[in-house]
Amino acid sequence: MEPARADKLGRMLKPSSIGVVGATDKNPLSLGARVYGNLKRDFKGQLYPINPRSAVVMGDEAYPSVRELPTAVDLIVVLAPATEVVEVIKDSIAAGIGGACIISAGFAETGEDGRQIQDQITALSMEHDFPVIGPNCVGIMDLHEGLMANFAMKPEEDRPQAGAIAIVSQSGGFGSFMLNRAAIRDVPVGIFASTGNQSDVTVEQLLEYYVEQSDVKVIALFLENISDEGPFLRAAKRAIELDKVIVALSPGSSEAVARAALSHTGSIVGSGEIFDSVCAQYGILRADSIDELLDYALILQDGRRMVGKGVGIVTPSGGAGVLAAGCAIENGLEVPRLPHAVEDRIAANIASFGSALNPIDTTPMVGPPGIEAFRVVLKELADEETIDAIVAVSWYGDDEKAELMAESHARQAKPVVPVIPVQPELLLRRGIATYSDPARAVRAIAAVARASGRQLPEDEARVDAERRATAHRLLASEAGQPFVLEHTAKEVLALYDFPVSAEQSCQTADQAVEALRRIGPPVVLKALSHDLPHKSDSGGVILNLRDESEVREAFASLTRRFEDERMAVHLDSILVQEMVPAQLEMALGLERDPLYGPIVAIGLGGSLIEIVGGLRLLRAPFGIREADEAIGCIADGRIGHATRGLSVGARQQLALAAVGLGQLGIECPEIMSVDVNPLLASKDGIRAVDALIVLDGA
Amino acid sequence: MEPARADKLGRMLKPSSIGVVGATDKNPLSLGARVYGNLKRDFKGQLYPINPRSAVVMGDEAYPSVRELPTAVDLIVVLAPATEVVEVIKDSIAAGIGGACIISAGFAETGEDGRQIQDQITALSMEHDFPVIGPNCVGIMDLHEGLMANFAMKPEEDRPQAGAIAIVSQSGGFGSFMLNRAAIRDVPVGIFASTGNQSDVTVEQLLEYYVEQSDVKVIALFLENISDEGPFLRAAKRAIELDKVIVALSPGSSEAVARAALSHTGSIVGSGEIFDSVCAQYGILRADSIDELLDYALILQDGRRMVGKGVGIVTPSGGAGVLAAGCAIENGLEVPRLPHAVEDRIAANIASFGSALNPIDTTPMVGPPGIEAFRVVLKELADEETIDAIVAVSWYGDDEKAELMAESHARQAKPVVPVIPVQPELLLRRGIATYSDPARAVRAIAAVARASGRQLPEDEARVDAERRATAHRLLASEAGQPFVLEHTAKEVLALYDFPVSAEQSCQTADQAVEALRRIGPPVVLKALSHDLPHKSDSGGVILNLRDESEVREAFASLTRRFEDERMAVHLDSILVQEMVPAQLEMALGLERDPLYGPIVAIGLGGSLIEIVGGLRLLRAPFGIREADEAIGCIADGRIGHATRGLSVGARQQLALAAVGLGQLGIECPEIMSVDVNPLLASKDGIRAVDALIVLDGA
Repeated sequence: MEPARADKLGRMLKPSSIGVVGATDKNPLSLGARVYGNLKRDFKGQLYPINPRSAVVMGDEAYPSVRELPTAVDLIVVLAPATEVVEVIKDSIAAGIGGACIISAGFAETGEDGRQIQDQITALSMEHDFPVIGPNCVGIMDLHEGLMANFAMKPEEDRPQAGAIAIVSQSGGFGSFMLNRAAIRDVPVGIFASTGNQSDVTVEQLLEYYVEQSDVKVIALFLENISDEGPFLRAAKRAIELDKVIVALSPGSSEAVARAALSHTGSIVGSGEIFDSVCAQYGILRADSIDELLDYALILQDGRRMVGKGVGIVTPSGGAGVLAAGCAIENGLEVPRLPHAVEDRIAANIASFGSALNPIDTTPMVGPPGIEAFRVVLKELADEETIDAIVAVSWYGDDEKAELMAESHARQAKPVVPVIPVQPELLLRRGIATYSDPARAVRAIAAVARASGRQLPEDEARVDAERRATAHRLLASEAGQPFVLEHTAKEVLALYDFPVSAEQSCQTADQAVEALRRIGPPVVLKALSHDLPHKSDSGGVILNLRDESEVREAFASLTRRFEDERMAVHLDSILVQEMVPAQLEMALGLERDPLYGPIVAIGLGGSLIEIVGGLRLLRAPFGIREADEAIGCIADGRIGHATRGLSVGARQQLALAAVGLGQLGIECPEIMSVDVNPLLASKDGIRAVDALIVLDGA
Repeated sequence: MEPARADKLGRMLKPSSIGVVGATDKNPLSLGARVYGNLKRDFKGQLYPINPRSAVVMGDEAYPSVRELPTAVDLIVVLAPATEVVEVIKDSIAAGIGGACIISAGFAETGEDGRQIQDQITALSMEHDFPVIGPNCVGIMDLHEGLMANFAMKPEEDRPQAGAIAIVSQSGGFGSFMLNRAAIRDVPVGIFASTGNQSDVTVEQLLEYYVEQSDVKVIALFLENISDEGPFLRAAKRAIELDKVIVALSPGSSEAVARAALSHTGSIVGSGEIFDSVCAQYGILRADSIDELLDYALILQDGRRMVGKGVGIVTPSGGAGVLAAGCAIENGLEVPRLPHAVEDRIAANIASFGSALNPIDTTPMVGPPGIEAFRVVLKELADEETIDAIVAVSWYGDDEKAELMAESHARQAKPVVPVIPVQPELLLRRGIATYSDPARAVRAIAAVARASGRQLPEDEARVDAERRATAHRLLASEAGQPFVLEHTAKEVLALYDFPVSAEQSCQTADQAVEALRRIGPPVVLKALSHDLPHKSDSGGVILNLRDESEVREAFASLTRRFEDERMAVHLDSILVQEMVPAQLEMALGLERDPLYGPIVAIGLGGSLIEIVGGLRLLRAPFGIREADEAIGCIADGRIGHATRGLSVGARQQLALAAVGLGQLGIECPEIMSVDVNPLLASKDGIRAVDALIVLDGA
């Protein structure tokens, strides 16, 4: 975001003076009364109600219009009817006002007439570089500034604790829902903003703005669609650099979701799988419900991180400990055994029928020995270097154990996470992330582990002009064809770090025999033709040819088969290819997403690719590290460990080829898709033995 | 459960009179005061405090011992020191008391001395058929009877609403945690019981008892281990018959879980995967956190079920609708489009910028038109037959929309599920399952869908004596060997509905040539030997032999290879086998679980079985329906749909073979494991081309 734009947003989002067009105290249920009432209660700066039909609103002198305001306010909040808003914006621009938040509805969401009004606002906003949030939004909140310019809450309702969480949502209704839940759950939210119809400011821009603000550590984001991936990805990277966390809640992809989203906003978050992958690649955490979003935001907002994945668990009930341990393992955390000396010291302080083995079971010891045991365990876990976070279960938020947890949390830097069924809010209000369900506490810790040690993705495109020129030339030779012939496709791939099978494209049987000699037996013969996208299925592949006579026979057989006029196949050539020994069939593919551009898919290949599923996706460009991480996740991580899995060498080559495929997608925008399946992996490395490239316009 | 035992449990669990050994009012923090205070507050029957050191406890005349009680009470609650408990039990038996709930600790959990006391109690209990719950438990609760014989709550604390949910937990601490959360969340729990050390009554027996009780519709179960699968499985089946639901929360399986569980209780729930599978097979729902357990129990307790999987969603915010729809699809529900006429009637009542397409977006319409629109939508969804449950989002529990939801819920039989961020408890207290998170509401509805239309598993073993005799004889011929030879294994499998490859075991090359003639080319030759468990890896398999000379050459080659003394292989015979054409490689296996007995595994096979993973497990015996359902879940359901997936015929044969493998496990307990991989599937059916059986004692 350009500094000038950020400054402009900063002025309107941290205003010292606010005008409210449509402020009223006539009908307490009206939005004008609710928004002004909210502002009136909390705002410490100067407030100006603007209402031609009132001289005074809630005790403040009212002004008939924006033009009459005595000063150029930083923010104008607009609740006027849609038909009057263009005038308000013009006046605001003329008056040197900082920016507008238009809460009024009746714009693009209502049809063509509303769309035209909104377009005028967009035009004014662009022409005068005047920031506008909304229209048709719920408004904005910044509790650090006492700014409640919204109708998400009622004036008389309890506010959330002001904390380092920002809720950013395009949907105002859903954003309000989240804000209200945060308030009820004592989750400390400082900032809330909804962008509604986004005539100017988008949710992605607010993300980019808020990630830079020092009073924001976590952004809880609700997204139905991404219209602008630039600020979204920039914000994600800045969050990694600044060690802040974006947690996104978004619907999956399905026909019903698409139907809902289309009718509601006109677009969806591309494919849900692609969005998932982009989030993983750019360090954005995902949540699958409002509660999970708030669970994660709660623990992430104090900025504590974990060095490793070790969780120490202490409970008064073995059952809770076992459940928490199971949940930790399922969520990628570790529950390490403690050193014997530590176990011994713990054992000396707990009942003999408890357990000093992590998860530690103190048993429900009562009175001073119980408190002392709990104190010892917390201290041992805090001091132990294999433990990176502590889950501590107690019964009541007001007991001495709760006090010990708060002390342990304050005294050192590891997350200490109390789990308390009764009155968890007592510790929550002291700024300690507290949960009432052990599983949810553990999943929140897993979110901290994921947020810890994130690295910036390598997404700078490094174009190799010479290589690109060669690729363009090779591809151009097949422009207009339904796909690029295998042999040409492999020549292109070889430019981009793909090991490909040794092969030769032949016109005559003599050439084929010559190729056999050069490559060495056994070989495969394949009929190459733009009319044969699926060679094997059409009988265009003959395997395992060992000598000259077999090659000649196969050559003749393929030629005969496809020269038959009834086949309607124009044969380009016959490919003679080495038989590649394989331990494992992998696949690499590339598709072009309308929003994110080239997406590379990596997974198990072969004819079962459809059934096996589980492809991993990466937005290009990306680096070796991201590729290797994606490979490590194939088949739930079994790909690297299994006896018949990928060798270290093959895995390195596969990662390199994936990076190359991403570069190919960047350098050759004429490519619509690439499908390399199978990509045969052996102990020594990988080799592409088939490849299909489809060009734009095919 | 035998009726006499159920009657005995019934007497103590619904008592009209209770004695409390150790009741006191001297120290309000003591368990004796807490338990007696709880009983005193709620119990309507006769209470007898027993305490030799007090004449009166909380205003009631106290008795010095059980012997002095004026009547044979139905239940004796024991809080006396462990050393005195045997005497109390003897006195109780002598006095004709109904049963005991021993809350005191200091028994088997503390070591050998405690174990001996506990063993005496077990012996007394068995000898006199005297039911004992505990020791070392938190006690029992039945709010329908005003029975609070426990210390899970304090006397002054709010009780849960009395409802049709029973919480049953071996772990008292964890059970209390759940009970307290239920009370705080307004989840209607009527019954709570913890079994602690289980000297007599087990958690499985309580499950079996409560599933029969008319005031119980849902049992929320926390399990660390199953010691007794008989009552557990019987209870599960009775729940299906009575259309009640068991929801189980249990830790997964992992080394840390095992460590925790071992130190805590001495055993774990077998393998987590097997427990998952048994639950799926026996209609038990799983939850992964306390909140999810309570979410499910809440909606299941009114007994409403769904005919299909269609969910109608209505929200004032498109964002919430899109999220709920996405979550519904991900959880196996459907969000069907409504008939055009219905959409038209809805559209006529909502704002033009809303959406009448399911998920319906009414927009945040205020005032009477908003209420009327909401009324119309609820009515249309209730009347529409493709809709089986309704998710309705509103903002406040006390508004007119909430009232409409309550009416709609009362007027018809589909679940109407309000989602309300602010004051959801207002509807909850009126008995309507209400959630404050759309995703959690939808997942709860998915639980209703899973609970609806459950069928009894076919788990009656039908032994075929003749077949069994043949199998025993075949297997006996290889007793003492490390495994059963492939050819014998397939003869056994063929008895149990396995289509196997045509093959012949040969001693001479002439026999092999004869076999080639009979079977037809191409054939495979395999070296059979008890020294070669992995024939392929040892070069013991030669594929694709087309004529006599190739067969002779291969025969000679195998014989030469394995007659070499350095190989230390004693060759049994050479197997000549047809080459089976395959479209897909599947696998079937059998393992014997120490708790559940024979478990059949079905999944994708071939050499990648380790990497691909995702085997489905079934406890034997089971029927075709269960087998087919398991097959339908392989590879997330893609196995049946994919182009290269299973044909209808192959799927039927596979299900039949799976059932047969389960029967084999039942009929031949001498079998430790069976491994059939690959099991080749083509358009026509399946064929086992390899098989490994390992016998007990191998």
